[in-house]
Amino acid sequence: MWRYLKRLVIGKPLKTLDEGSQKLSRGKALALLSSDALSSVAYGTEQIITALLMAGTVALWWQLPIAGLVLLLLAAITLSYRQIIHAYPGGGGAYRVTAKNWGQKAGLVAGGSLLVDYTLTVAVSVASGTEAITSALPGLRPYSVLIAIGLILLLMALNLRGVRESAGFLTIPVFFFIAMVVLMIGMGLYNIVTGQVTYNATAAVGTSFGSASIVLFMRAFSSGSSSLTGVEAISNAVPNFKEPKAKNAAATLSIMALILAFFFAGITFLSYWYGIVPREEVTVLSQIGMVTFGHGVLFYLFQLATALILAVAANTGFSAFPQLAYNLAKDKYMPHIYLDKGDRLSYSNGIVSLALGAIALVLIFQGSTEQLIPLYAIGVFVPFTLSQSGMLRHWLREREGHWRLKMTVNFIGALISGILVISLFLLRFDVIWPYLVVMPVLMGIFWRIHLHYVNVADELRVMAKERVERHRYSGSTVVILVSNLTKVTVGAVDYAKSIGDQVIAMHVSFDSNPQKERDLGVKFKKEFPDVRYVDIHSSYRSITEPAVRFVDEISKNAKERNHSVTILIPSFVPRHGWQNALHNQNSMRLHNALASRDVAVSIYYYHLKH
Amino acid sequence: MWRYLKRLVIGKPLKTLDEGSQKLSRGKALALLSSDALSSVAYGTEQIITALLMAGTVALWWQLPIAGLVLLLLAAITLSYRQIIHAYPGGGGAYRVTAKNWGQKAGLVAGGSLLVDYTLTVAVSVASGTEAITSALPGLRPYSVLIAIGLILLLMALNLRGVRESAGFLTIPVFFFIAMVVLMIGMGLYNIVTGQVTYNATAAVGTSFGSASIVLFMRAFSSGSSSLTGVEAISNAVPNFKEPKAKNAAATLSIMALILAFFFAGITFLSYWYGIVPREEVTVLSQIGMVTFGHGVLFYLFQLATALILAVAANTGFSAFPQLAYNLAKDKYMPHIYLDKGDRLSYSNGIVSLALGAIALVLIFQGSTEQLIPLYAIGVFVPFTLSQSGMLRHWLREREGHWRLKMTVNFIGALISGILVISLFLLRFDVIWPYLVVMPVLMGIFWRIHLHYVNVADELRVMAKERVERHRYSGSTVVILVSNLTKVTVGAVDYAKSIGDQVIAMHVSFDSNPQKERDLGVKFKKEFPDVRYVDIHSSYRSITEPAVRFVDEISKNAKERNHSVTILIPSFVPRHGWQNALHNQNSMRLHNALASRDVAVSIYYYHLKH
Repeated sequence: MWRYLKRLVIGKPLKTLDEGSQKLSRGKALALLSSDALSSVAYGTEQIITALLMAGTVALWWQLPIAGLVLLLLAAITLSYRQIIHAYPGGGGAYRVTAKNWGQKAGLVAGGSLLVDYTLTVAVSVASGTEAITSALPGLRPYSVLIAIGLILLLMALNLRGVRESAGFLTIPVFFFIAMVVLMIGMGLYNIVTGQVTYNATAAVGTSFGSASIVLFMRAFSSGSSSLTGVEAISNAVPNFKEPKAKNAAATLSIMALILAFFFAGITFLSYWYGIVPREEVTVLSQIGMVTFGHGVLFYLFQLATALILAVAANTGFSAFPQLAYNLAKDKYMPHIYLDKGDRLSYSNGIVSLALGAIALVLIFQGSTEQLIPLYAIGVFVPFTLSQSGMLRHWLREREGHWRLKMTVNFIGALISGILVISLFLLRFDVIWPYLVVMPVLMGIFWRIHLHYVNVADELRVMAKERVERHRYSGSTVVILVSNLTKVTVGAVDYAKSIGDQVIAMHVSFDSNPQKERDLGVKFKKEFPDVRYVDIHSSYRSITEPAVRFVDEISKNAKERNHSVTILIPSFVPRHGWQNALHNQNSMRLHNALASRDVAVSIYYYHLKH
Repeated sequence: MWRYLKRLVIGKPLKTLDEGSQKLSRGKALALLSSDALSSVAYGTEQIITALLMAGTVALWWQLPIAGLVLLLLAAITLSYRQIIHAYPGGGGAYRVTAKNWGQKAGLVAGGSLLVDYTLTVAVSVASGTEAITSALPGLRPYSVLIAIGLILLLMALNLRGVRESAGFLTIPVFFFIAMVVLMIGMGLYNIVTGQVTYNATAAVGTSFGSASIVLFMRAFSSGSSSLTGVEAISNAVPNFKEPKAKNAAATLSIMALILAFFFAGITFLSYWYGIVPREEVTVLSQIGMVTFGHGVLFYLFQLATALILAVAANTGFSAFPQLAYNLAKDKYMPHIYLDKGDRLSYSNGIVSLALGAIALVLIFQGSTEQLIPLYAIGVFVPFTLSQSGMLRHWLREREGHWRLKMTVNFIGALISGILVISLFLLRFDVIWPYLVVMPVLMGIFWRIHLHYVNVADELRVMAKERVERHRYSGSTVVILVSNLTKVTVGAVDYAKSIGDQVIAMHVSFDSNPQKERDLGVKFKKEFPDVRYVDIHSSYRSITEPAVRFVDEISKNAKERNHSVTILIPSFVPRHGWQNALHNQNSMRLHNALASRDVAVSIYYYHLKH
């Protein structure tokens, strides 16, 4: 049943060698990895204007120079990440670069930040996608948490099917959004040039105003730079690309950055020219759309495109998170399960973990996840700063090709990102303090996991030089757990004799029915006169404690005689899975308890016809 | 950690022989088992009046004859259940009686109805208790579902601690409620006798009215009889009483019935005398309290007592459900886990199942569980009818003592209950139809479980007469699963040699790193030249399928040579439980897959220092 369902949702398993066919072309990669970055133009300009509005509408012309600075930062980040992709084509982006150049601890800060960030991305963008849906269909509003969870599960299922198939599905909303925004900016500029829309800016460029200050500027800039989250995703996902991987990834990044720059510049210019002021109920982007398209079909198509891109922006996280988790697990900082590829060659455990994390955030914040947005920015710009400053060290070490030029690019990127991080901490500490709580905890977890893996490997390693210590047992003692006398018991005793030199039957008896216990002993001894039968009494209703105590005693004796010890649990397997629920779970409990002892625990399976 | 928490919430384990000290005295039993029945006076009278009001206020005098009939039914049920307690002191009440006298199928209808009913009781009374809390503290209203779930978990924890301790805790609300209602009826009658409250009935007894009809009468009667739910609980819980069990249980039942009768009669009389008419925002009981006590402290204490008794009424279900489930499991109609006693000698699995069922109902109906109340009545009166008519057959068979008198009592009970069931089906089919859906499903489950247990017992039984078929193996083959070459592998191979005449090492290799796979083979063969090493190739990333196929092949060979087959999985146990999450779960998956084969599956445990 479960298996059939899994096939239906996820598809049939792929062979390991099918790997190549699951790889991404540039177009599909753009659909899969750019939705987060592109969707942020839906709120980037608005965040700048809202910050500036604190100084009155006269300050709004500042959106142009600030947008210019954001574009400069975008250019620096893009060029820098192109260089990172070529220098570190194994994926892992900021984590790898930082770890390599600033040491492992700094790398973990970058990696941990991004893991948290992708989870936030999924929760926040799914929540805003849901909001778009419930604005259109208000009847669904009471179910918004359920819808958000449903969307997350849908994205999870898509990604478990494999990157290529989810790219196919996501191409439509991404390209639809790109087409609608291009159309809007084009029509807007055409209208301006042809004079159909008159100049309406709230204040001309250069107007001076009293409250102009560096704090205002930095606050608006740092708000606007949240549009740049998602740009790094491609650098984490390089291994998913078609060969030549690095070249394709770098090209996709450039295309995405150009689109993003065009969108951001166009939208900010129209917003300035139209004199848009943020309003509670209508977004800035929506206002621009309304002025450009009027109240017709095109406007509603534009609204639909915005809703769709927000809903699928979550998918960027689904592509980047599992790859990053894979890199951290490979370096032994996260559990090994993140290394396993699923039936469809995607890192299923990373995908499922991300979905669960995002669902938890949606449940905790009951869908009102907007308060998490500023955490985004810090979670992205810390890794940006670390990786780009790391690249400085990279060039100083490598010193090849146009390294001076490349280093300058990285220097500008690192400088602007660093200033942004500092101003975020100074100006928005009220909302970003949780970052300082979550990160140390995450670092602690990474280190404890790492320590454990390293210690285990040390302890278990068989050295090439040293003589492996071998042990030759003189015989084997088998303790068989007897709860009653059935064909299962008989079969298990026969089996025990085939592997054991000495077989002991252990029975745990309770106070409830002494006569029955005595009868069993008599019957067993009559049937198996050559097997030692030991009846252990328990005052409680648990069989584990007295059984473990008895096993310890037997182990001591066996050690003296140089015997190995096997505990044999007779068990029967019903024909149908559901029937397992009908039988006592005692044997599983005993198995778990005995795992703490230096013995082998064996289960003898008897298969029922019923 | 988990163990410590369990101790804290549930208490330290009790010895099986401590059983006696956990038994109930009459007073504690009253607190534990009467809250459901007593709390129903909070709505019983109201339900009668509301039904009558359809014919106008002139019909309200009918509440007196209807209350008389309800009291007659109560007397019949009480006497009848006293007889049941004495005749079937093993508990199980309606289930046992019906199964004994009408056959197993009818018994299951009675038992199944009550199981569903207790779950409904818990959900509904916890929801109304929560409503009482949130009426007092409206700030908590958004959290009402959480509060209801919290209350259910609290009752669950109390009951897991054992019946005696939960009785201690519940004595206060039950006796507080009894005291407040006695005070109210006493003061009400005193005021009437002393003329301080004037006769205010909406219509005098005997007033005729146009819409008087048998349908109206039956509708009001069947609504009012829902006050009698919970009366049967004591007969299910006889084994929990102190010796002499039957006598104590019967006495407790009589005391409870007398209190209930006094309350019901008193409240209905006051309601008639005061001329109370149901109002949307204030309950009938609350109105009576207000007239009697005025708007003082006593009135608020009375309100508090009502809220508390409703909240703890759920506890009746927690006492009766596990005992009933035990009886059904003993007869092999429910899973054996319901037979297990927990650390504190209560049937923990029954308690936990009931809590989960009730939580599910609360979540599904989001706390508005009032719509479930009519289902109550049918779920209680079907077993009433079955068990009391069953008692008729009992007396016809036994014919001892005053059997004619006793039979008359049961006849009256069966007759009134039967008429009630018929009128419920005729008059309230719109709300009780789910009963006709749930019961056949439940019956089907009971039968499938029973069939399975009977078949398994038949299949496994070692007959007393027949010669037990024994098998003498000529040797043993051990297949050891090798994933790498560590100290765990070395230890496992040494162990395998101690139990096996032939040891085969099986390794599953993947496409991802062929060189590494070859190296492992070379190293292994060098280290263990006497062990056959087999490398199986998998095109997918699963080790289970190729491993199972190989095991099947080995089994065939072993059978030919009359060898037993053991599959050995080397495994290491980290020092701390959480570390298990860091290691691959492959061995568990393989273990489960091999359970379908006729082999013994053994785990060799290596214990890490880290």
